[in-house]
Amino acid sequence: MGIDDSVTAGHLQELRRGTVVLAALAALRTPGYGYALLESLTTAGIHVDANTLYPLLRRLEKQGLLTSEWNTDEPRPRKFYRTSPDGEQLVATLTAEWHRLDDSLRNLTEEI
Amino acid sequence: MGIDDSVTAGHLQELRRGTVVLAALAALRTPGYGYALLESLTTAGIHVDANTLYPLLRRLEKQGLLTSEWNTDEPRPRKFYRTSPDGEQLVATLTAEWHRLDDSLRNLTEEI
Repeated sequence: MGIDDSVTAGHLQELRRGTVVLAALAALRTPGYGYALLESLTTAGIHVDANTLYPLLRRLEKQGLLTSEWNTDEPRPRKFYRTSPDGEQLVATLTAEWHRLDDSLRNLTEEI
Repeated sequence: MGIDDSVTAGHLQELRRGTVVLAALAALRTPGYGYALLESLTTAGIHVDANTLYPLLRRLEKQGLLTSEWNTDEPRPRKFYRTSPDGEQLVATLTAEWHRLDDSLRNLTEEI
């Protein structure tokens, strides 16, 4: 009996997935490389793997929420991301929604 | 300029999606019909449509997180759901993860 581990893992992943965009855009208000972002998100407690994060960064750039520059000062050029003004606006919108969801969930989970 | 409305809507939906399982399992600790749950989630501020919620309830039942009974007292039988002991356990796990994510996101979004 008890819950199948893969069921629990799936639901945990679903809960976490929605937070990655907000976390990445908020973190990249301090500009950084993809790899450094991956480390700072992990340190902050937002678990995401490189195979999810790197395509997400390209998608956010395409949507105008991040800008990027190539740093060519080093032998191996690396892409440097920062949150755009539109991205800042989305951080504000998603943060407000997060707080609203947090109120709703705290009410629902503490009700009984 | 500015963000495309559909981009904002997509990211908002992604943020909300992850909360529906926790909200539904928490709410169904007070047993109820699908339709009543839809209304109580909306009242609580968790927006989900019937086309998403009803298949989700069947999936959660299949995973052993909800139990159901048919109420045949009325002319049209209706399915009555309640959160199972396994579902209660998942509510506890997801609530702890939610609080953890909330701490992480508050740190990231308030940092600057």
